[in-house]
Amino acid sequence: MAEHHSEGLSRSTTRDGVDRWTVRAVHEVTYDVVATQALFDVTNPTLATAGAIPAATEHSRRLIVIDETVEQLHGNQIRGYFTHHGVQATYHVLEAHEMVKNWDSVDSVIRTMAEAGIDRRSEPVIAIGGGVLLDIVGFAASIYRRSTPYIRIPTTLIGLVDAGVGVKTGVNFGTGKNKIGSYAAPAVTYVDRSFLRSLNRRHLSNGMAEILKIALIKSRRLMSLLDMYGRAVLDDGFVGSTPALANAADDIIGTSIHLMLEELQPNLWEANLERCVDYGHTFSPTVEMKALPELLHGEAVCIDMALSSVLSFRRGRMTRHELAHVLATMQALDLPIWNSSLEEPGVLHVALADTVRHRGGQQRIPLPVGIGDHEFANDVSADEVAHALHTLRTAAGMKAGEIAAAPEPEHDMVLKV
Amino acid sequence: MAEHHSEGLSRSTTRDGVDRWTVRAVHEVTYDVVATQALFDVTNPTLATAGAIPAATEHSRRLIVIDETVEQLHGNQIRGYFTHHGVQATYHVLEAHEMVKNWDSVDSVIRTMAEAGIDRRSEPVIAIGGGVLLDIVGFAASIYRRSTPYIRIPTTLIGLVDAGVGVKTGVNFGTGKNKIGSYAAPAVTYVDRSFLRSLNRRHLSNGMAEILKIALIKSRRLMSLLDMYGRAVLDDGFVGSTPALANAADDIIGTSIHLMLEELQPNLWEANLERCVDYGHTFSPTVEMKALPELLHGEAVCIDMALSSVLSFRRGRMTRHELAHVLATMQALDLPIWNSSLEEPGVLHVALADTVRHRGGQQRIPLPVGIGDHEFANDVSADEVAHALHTLRTAAGMKAGEIAAAPEPEHDMVLKV
Repeated sequence: MAEHHSEGLSRSTTRDGVDRWTVRAVHEVTYDVVATQALFDVTNPTLATAGAIPAATEHSRRLIVIDETVEQLHGNQIRGYFTHHGVQATYHVLEAHEMVKNWDSVDSVIRTMAEAGIDRRSEPVIAIGGGVLLDIVGFAASIYRRSTPYIRIPTTLIGLVDAGVGVKTGVNFGTGKNKIGSYAAPAVTYVDRSFLRSLNRRHLSNGMAEILKIALIKSRRLMSLLDMYGRAVLDDGFVGSTPALANAADDIIGTSIHLMLEELQPNLWEANLERCVDYGHTFSPTVEMKALPELLHGEAVCIDMALSSVLSFRRGRMTRHELAHVLATMQALDLPIWNSSLEEPGVLHVALADTVRHRGGQQRIPLPVGIGDHEFANDVSADEVAHALHTLRTAAGMKAGEIAAAPEPEHDMVLKV
Repeated sequence: MAEHHSEGLSRSTTRDGVDRWTVRAVHEVTYDVVATQALFDVTNPTLATAGAIPAATEHSRRLIVIDETVEQLHGNQIRGYFTHHGVQATYHVLEAHEMVKNWDSVDSVIRTMAEAGIDRRSEPVIAIGGGVLLDIVGFAASIYRRSTPYIRIPTTLIGLVDAGVGVKTGVNFGTGKNKIGSYAAPAVTYVDRSFLRSLNRRHLSNGMAEILKIALIKSRRLMSLLDMYGRAVLDDGFVGSTPALANAADDIIGTSIHLMLEELQPNLWEANLERCVDYGHTFSPTVEMKALPELLHGEAVCIDMALSSVLSFRRGRMTRHELAHVLATMQALDLPIWNSSLEEPGVLHVALADTVRHRGGQQRIPLPVGIGDHEFANDVSADEVAHALHTLRTAAGMKAGEIAAAPEPEHDMVLKV
């Protein structure tokens, strides 16, 4: 056997004439998440030059893809900003919600990129909108010319703490939630809480679901922040009407982002399919698609978290009081813990089967352990899910106090079921 | 300024409240290219277990996407092979050529993957066909569940030496050649020359263009091989009718693959846009799309190589005899050096402008220096292209001997123009 090596490329030839080359290469990825303020204040030069390659700054052109709601609310300010800074901006206004989170929307963004004749490296696409818009534009940018830089500016709470900070992009395919997409780091993500002013209450709660998720699986401190300030910050619309509320809003958002990035960074391409941030994402992808357009993403995730918490409780990994605390927090944040689509025959079975395929042949279900910790389960049975569902339905009909006060039951006879 | 570091994640907070996280991560990629024989001989177990994760080998299911021509020629053998090895195979027969190298074809492959309920990690898609099919299936696999493993089995010469050995995937978008796609390494590529038996002469020549490309820019040795055996191996259909012809075929293919991989490995994600393997790919993407379905990919590349060689000659970087040698070799391999679409007003201007965008704002045109070496040009003028075009048209009307024998002209009056 002859062997020839160069750095990263080796060749071997066996006596029977089989020639084998092995190619090894390393892709280094770096990106920033910046929590800042007044991004579209004309005195703030940050965005006007962000992501450009120095050598090509004379090409001051940008394609800006904006969610149609954001366009209505902030379009004038955004256009004023780029005009002030002498950027030749092309605007593409996109309807972006789960019902149109599909290839057609990706196609429309790529079409605009092609028409604008975007440079492959020096003219980053700027995406301004919620999680769905960021996912669509990120996917389009990642495949146009096999990757074009893009900048994420989330304008919703779920975008600020979840879709905006990682590297995943994608859209639905048929009835499959996020079935096609890519891992594509943005050049930079700018997190500006002032967008939340114009967000309605339901969408704020929707974002709270992902914040609660990260608290439940890995941070008692964040859970305490939510206990103390969650409802108040929500009522305040994250505006920061008092210094205490402003601090609380910044702390909740900043802590969530940090905890998320701690989980994402070592596993950016999901080489490890055991991901605690998948808590709430075991049954929800199928349930969310089934219930479209009834449930927002965070709402479907919350229902899944509630069901998974009951599974933990029934396994003795969470006390009754902890479960009551979890469900009460969800209710305090105006999040649902139940949806009628859960009862459609077979839906949870189908959901789990698809998740097993998505997680490389095993369940790898993140289950909370108490509050602030987690473990992974690979042996959740259909029977167990059915019992948990039954328990959850009962709990959903009770008030928070009743759950905590219910008499201590057998594990398979919880909550007076 | 406060700073907190963990491996790959740093956070800094400035006094005015700007919170910045920097995420750093490294993606390691490894793949094999294996030149082997008798891949579909039932006694050869290689393919039946290739790319599977050991823990999941009980799932012996595969989705196999085959080019419709390959299906006609080799379908029975391929089906027999998987049946013999007890693989539960699902077959998707795909029409694959430049005219249908588009999203609709990608969509059809993804639909089949979704229907087959492919596991995310342990059930690699097997793609069997030419470069176009490999590009389509590779793209589909790379975005399904944000990446699903796939195996490439090229069945054409261009697939064996070019499309099959790298990591690029993609399809055309509108009139843009390969405008959407990804960098996605296959689990493994199997190169089996015996498929070439059934390839028609024109498609063999098509593949020879990419072999000639790599010879012209970096290997006098490969050029000598082509001089000695190119025509004979082509006439023999790469069958290897004699030991000498079999050796020559293996050497030409093996050397081409090795030289390609030497260029690709250090630059797998094209961080460096100065790529000598882009020789022949400066004007050709636009010309190929313009002339569809008239020109095959390698034919369009050859015309571009001829034009670029004339540019080199006119710059004094290639002698008349070297240019004559290059053009004569193209003709000996039955490759075109001219197409009427070159004369459409503005076509080369549009082509170069798009390539400049694709190469991050500079021309970075690989030009041959003599035979077997290259340099990059960033200053090729429209005038220079027009003169070179004129020269090439004249040369295209001459026989090989006439080019070499033409009287020595001024540089701007070459070839009796």
